[in-house]
Amino acid sequence: MGSGKAIVLLSGGLDSATCCAWAVVRDGCEVTALTFAYGQRHRLEVERAAALARSLGVVEHHVIKLDLASVGGSALTGEGKIPHGREDPTSGGIPPTYVPARNTVFLAHALAWAEARGMEAIYIGVNCVDFSGYPDCRPEFISAFQEVARLGTKAGVEGRAPEIRTPLLYLSKGEIIRHAVQLGVDLSLTLSCYEPDPSGRACGSCDSCILRRRGFEEAGIPDPTEYVR
Amino acid sequence: MGSGKAIVLLSGGLDSATCCAWAVVRDGCEVTALTFAYGQRHRLEVERAAALARSLGVVEHHVIKLDLASVGGSALTGEGKIPHGREDPTSGGIPPTYVPARNTVFLAHALAWAEARGMEAIYIGVNCVDFSGYPDCRPEFISAFQEVARLGTKAGVEGRAPEIRTPLLYLSKGEIIRHAVQLGVDLSLTLSCYEPDPSGRACGSCDSCILRRRGFEEAGIPDPTEYVR
Repeated sequence: MGSGKAIVLLSGGLDSATCCAWAVVRDGCEVTALTFAYGQRHRLEVERAAALARSLGVVEHHVIKLDLASVGGSALTGEGKIPHGREDPTSGGIPPTYVPARNTVFLAHALAWAEARGMEAIYIGVNCVDFSGYPDCRPEFISAFQEVARLGTKAGVEGRAPEIRTPLLYLSKGEIIRHAVQLGVDLSLTLSCYEPDPSGRACGSCDSCILRRRGFEEAGIPDPTEYVR
Repeated sequence: MGSGKAIVLLSGGLDSATCCAWAVVRDGCEVTALTFAYGQRHRLEVERAAALARSLGVVEHHVIKLDLASVGGSALTGEGKIPHGREDPTSGGIPPTYVPARNTVFLAHALAWAEARGMEAIYIGVNCVDFSGYPDCRPEFISAFQEVARLGTKAGVEGRAPEIRTPLLYLSKGEIIRHAVQLGVDLSLTLSCYEPDPSGRACGSCDSCILRRRGFEEAGIPDPTEYVR
């Protein structure tokens, strides 16, 4: 029997919000949500995550500050340009918005929290269908990290390593959106855009906006997002 | 051919200092040292790491602030008592000084740095001989993390994942000390103690002091450490 408690990595985006609702509503977990203020270009993400945490019924929400911007190597933390208007964000190699080892860093912190507090699971909203080819969203990476959790913790040695749960891993964006609606996620609070304008409007043309727009079309659900164009 | 550049995790202790000297002197790497101010009981560790970084000829030294104290679950970050006067720190299970997922968190950050800067290796001074049974010092954990580095990064996808190097993994404490002397490490700068007094003197009775004292005896080398008792 597990503790019924879980960590959810919550970013402010559509996928992590749906993943969080999945943990709370469908799996009945007592959820502590973690959001990382890691030096991403815009801080709106962190505000949206806080609003989502309130609306999704999590027990605790913590914002963890990390400085991945001085590490560098990504357009999302200020180096180089974010691509706009790409025909197909799911092809063409790993784009400059990849942040070096980001999910490894996030999962490592989640593992520390989950182990210290005797939690049974860590939820992460990774997806390998409608995604930008980030290596740390693939099932083989998740399996490798599960081994780290099993072998690198006292909990693991005692046979109760937190389980890494990825309910969205093999869903299309349209399917994720349909689940979100079923789970009661307020999608108007979610922000997928990599480069929103100062008022919080989505650009409509970055890879993440393109995937989001297509997802709503595929799901046949009206998109509540306000796009610049 | 690698870049000749490496990250070394440097804590201020004997093992990580020796590991750092190994990377610089024996392997000829251009080293960036990372030290974590993670909320450990005493901050002397970070000061010693800075002094060691200067003396060991690293190219850069960065201190990364992380709040593992609010995560909890360890005597080293303030929860419960640090054991003193134990007969054999290498037996009797994982002690309360274990910090949940600490090396996973440290290696995750090191991986981000190494990938973003095109480095070929990450050095960590873990040891599974004269150690306290921490699960994240064992070879099986290191292998699992190597897989994470290979599968969870763009560098890995491109066949140039940073290599996790653990030159001290199978050495006794006495052997580590002999290597330290050969490599020119100023051992008087290193601090192993979990609970030094305010002036920086080692307690002499925590698990880490016991292992250190035995190591110097085994090596037949005078111990420059000032112990309280």
